[in-house]
Amino acid sequence: MKIVRPTLVLDKSICLRNIERMAKKAAENGLRFRPHFKTHQSPEIGEWFRIYGVNAITVSSYSMAKKFAGYGWNDITLAFPLNILELKQINELAGKIKLNILIENREAATVLAEKATNPLGVFIKIDTGYHRTGIEASRTGFIQSIINIFSINPQLTFKGFITHAGNNYHASSVNEIFTRHFDGLVTFRSLRKKFQKKYPGIEISIGDTPSCSVCNNFNGIDEIRPGNFVFYDLTQYELGACGFEDIAVKMVCPVVAKHSARNEVVIYGGAVHLSKESIINVNGKPMYGRIVLTKNDKKELLGPMNYVQSLSQEHGILKVEQKQFGHFAPGDLVEIVPVHSCLTANLMRRYITTDDHKVLTINN
Amino acid sequence: MKIVRPTLVLDKSICLRNIERMAKKAAENGLRFRPHFKTHQSPEIGEWFRIYGVNAITVSSYSMAKKFAGYGWNDITLAFPLNILELKQINELAGKIKLNILIENREAATVLAEKATNPLGVFIKIDTGYHRTGIEASRTGFIQSIINIFSINPQLTFKGFITHAGNNYHASSVNEIFTRHFDGLVTFRSLRKKFQKKYPGIEISIGDTPSCSVCNNFNGIDEIRPGNFVFYDLTQYELGACGFEDIAVKMVCPVVAKHSARNEVVIYGGAVHLSKESIINVNGKPMYGRIVLTKNDKKELLGPMNYVQSLSQEHGILKVEQKQFGHFAPGDLVEIVPVHSCLTANLMRRYITTDDHKVLTINN
Repeated sequence: MKIVRPTLVLDKSICLRNIERMAKKAAENGLRFRPHFKTHQSPEIGEWFRIYGVNAITVSSYSMAKKFAGYGWNDITLAFPLNILELKQINELAGKIKLNILIENREAATVLAEKATNPLGVFIKIDTGYHRTGIEASRTGFIQSIINIFSINPQLTFKGFITHAGNNYHASSVNEIFTRHFDGLVTFRSLRKKFQKKYPGIEISIGDTPSCSVCNNFNGIDEIRPGNFVFYDLTQYELGACGFEDIAVKMVCPVVAKHSARNEVVIYGGAVHLSKESIINVNGKPMYGRIVLTKNDKKELLGPMNYVQSLSQEHGILKVEQKQFGHFAPGDLVEIVPVHSCLTANLMRRYITTDDHKVLTINN
Repeated sequence: MKIVRPTLVLDKSICLRNIERMAKKAAENGLRFRPHFKTHQSPEIGEWFRIYGVNAITVSSYSMAKKFAGYGWNDITLAFPLNILELKQINELAGKIKLNILIENREAATVLAEKATNPLGVFIKIDTGYHRTGIEASRTGFIQSIINIFSINPQLTFKGFITHAGNNYHASSVNEIFTRHFDGLVTFRSLRKKFQKKYPGIEISIGDTPSCSVCNNFNGIDEIRPGNFVFYDLTQYELGACGFEDIAVKMVCPVVAKHSARNEVVIYGGAVHLSKESIINVNGKPMYGRIVLTKNDKKELLGPMNYVQSLSQEHGILKVEQKQFGHFAPGDLVEIVPVHSCLTANLMRRYITTDDHKVLTINN
C-alpha cells in the first residue's frame, strides 16, 4: 500500500517475537500468562496470542470485555476498579464467560454483594506504591472487612490480590525496577501468608510491562498481566525495558514543510494520531516521539536531539539536528516511535503490517 | 439515557448560542464566516451552522474535506500545509467542489504546479508569531517566488494570505491577545498593500478562537475561521476567551473509588476519553480538566484546586479540596470540563445532547 497520510505500521514478526518471549518467560516461571489486551485492542492480534497457548486475558473496561468475549475469549479479568453503574451489564457477561473483577472499597463491595447474580471472581486491588488505586498491603483489617462484605453472596469468590506497579514507569533506572519488584514480592509473600489459611486458593497477579520484561524472579507470583510489551514504545525503550529492535509499531507520517531557520520539520501527524503523551527528553523538554530514518536500507533511530517537539491536532513539529536537517524534504515519509503505543493504537484504530495487511481494532 | 460510562454531553442551546454569536460578529464586521469543522467533526452539528447562513467551511485534512463534501459542503478550505502525497485525491475533490489549499514552500508549489488538474484556490500561509508553520510576512521576495512557481498552472488561483495565531493559546492575558491581534492587522495591511496591485482580488483570512472571541476590530480582514468556539473548553476559559456558561461540552464520568488519605477521587474516564492535553494549574502542576458538581440543582465549577491531576488509559485521578471530598462517592457521576474539546470530541466520536439525542461525528 502506498502510504499518503499518517499510518500506524506494525511489524508482525517483532510482535510475534515479543509475545513468544513473554509466553516463554511465564511458562518457565510457572506463571499464568494473562496478557492485557488494552494495548492492541485487536481481535486479530488476539489470535496471535493463542498460538502461544494464551487462553485468559485482561481488559480495562466492560466494553472491551464484552467485545473480546464476542471473539471467543471466555476467561477475562476486568482490571479496573468495579464501576457499580455497569453492574447489570457485568452480571450479564458473567453469565456467559468466566469473569474476574477488581474491588478496592467497601461501597463497591456492598453493592456487589447485593446485586451479583452470576458467578464472579473478585480480586482485591493492592497499591504497591503507584498510589493510583488500590489498598496498601499493610491495611489487612480493612482488606478483611471488604472480603467479609462481598463474601455473603455465594456467587462471589475471593480470588486473591492484584496490583499494577505503574510507578515503574517513573523509574530512573532498571535497577529501580528490580528493587521495586523485589519489594513487591516481599509484600505479596506476607499478604498471602496472612490470608491463605482462611482462603487457601488465593492467587497473586502482577501486571506491568517493565518488571515483566526485565525481572526474572517471580517467586510467590501466580499470574502476570503485561500488555504494552506486545508493541513496546519509546517510554519502554527510554526506561530500558526493551531494545529498539523490540518496538513493533511506528507511525509513518508525510513531511509537509521544513523551516531551516529553526531546524524544524513539519509532519502530517498530530495529537489525533500519536496522542499527546509525552516524556521528558535529555534536554529537559517534553518529547512526543523519536525519529527513525532509513539510510542505506538500514533503519536508524536518530539521536534524542531529533524528536517530536510539539503536536497540534494534525501537525507534528520535529526538532532535528543541523546535520540531519538535509535528510528531510516535503513529500518524504518519516517514521516516528510513539511515546505510548497503547494510546496511539487507540487513536489510530487500525494497523498496516509491514507486509501490507490491514489489522483492525475493536473500535471500528 | 442513563449514563454508566464516560460520555461526552453536549448542551445544544449553548452550542447554538456560540454559533449565533460568532456568525453575528462576522456579519457585523463584514467578514466571511468560514468555521473550522475539526472541532466538532459532526455532519449534524454542521447543519446547525447552516441555520446561521454558513456555507463555506474549513477543515484540517483531506479526509475531513472529502467526508464533509459528501454531506453537501461545496466550499472548503483545507487549512493544512499541502501534503503532496495526497495530490491525486485533492485533484479529484477539486473536480467536485470549490477547494482552497495552503502552501508555504517552493517544493510543494513546484509539485502543485506540475500536477494540479482541476481548479484550486491557493493561499499562502503566513507565520504571525506562532512559529509552527508559514512564512514570515516580511519575506515578500520569497512569497513572490512561490506565487511565481504555481502561477504557471492556469488551474491555480492565488487567493491571498492565511494565518492561524496559535500563539494566542500561550497568551498570559486577554490584553496580550488584543496586542497580538492588532500587530497581525498591521502586518496584513502592509502585506496586502504589497501584493494587491498585482493580485487585486486577494483576501486575508485569520483563524483562532481566542482573537475571534475577544477582539472587535477586524479592519482589513476578509474572513475568519475559528473552530473551537463551537464548544469552547477549559483552555479558552482559563485564557479569558469564554465564560463558564459558554462551554458546551462536558465529559460525564462515573466515580469508582476515593482515597481519603490523599483527597483523591478515581473516575472511569482517562486518556482515551479526555486526551492527555494539559494546561498548567495555579499550583504549577499539569491539569487535565476541572470539575463541575451539581449542588441544589445548580451547576458549580469547583475552584482550581479541584482538578484532574493525572490520566491513565481509562483512569482519571481527581485531586480535590478537603471540603469538597465528601461530595464524591463511588457510583456518582461527575462532570469534567475538558482541557481541549477538539481532542476530546475526536476521541469520543459521539455526543449525547442534554435532551438525550445522539450526535455522531464523521469518525464512526
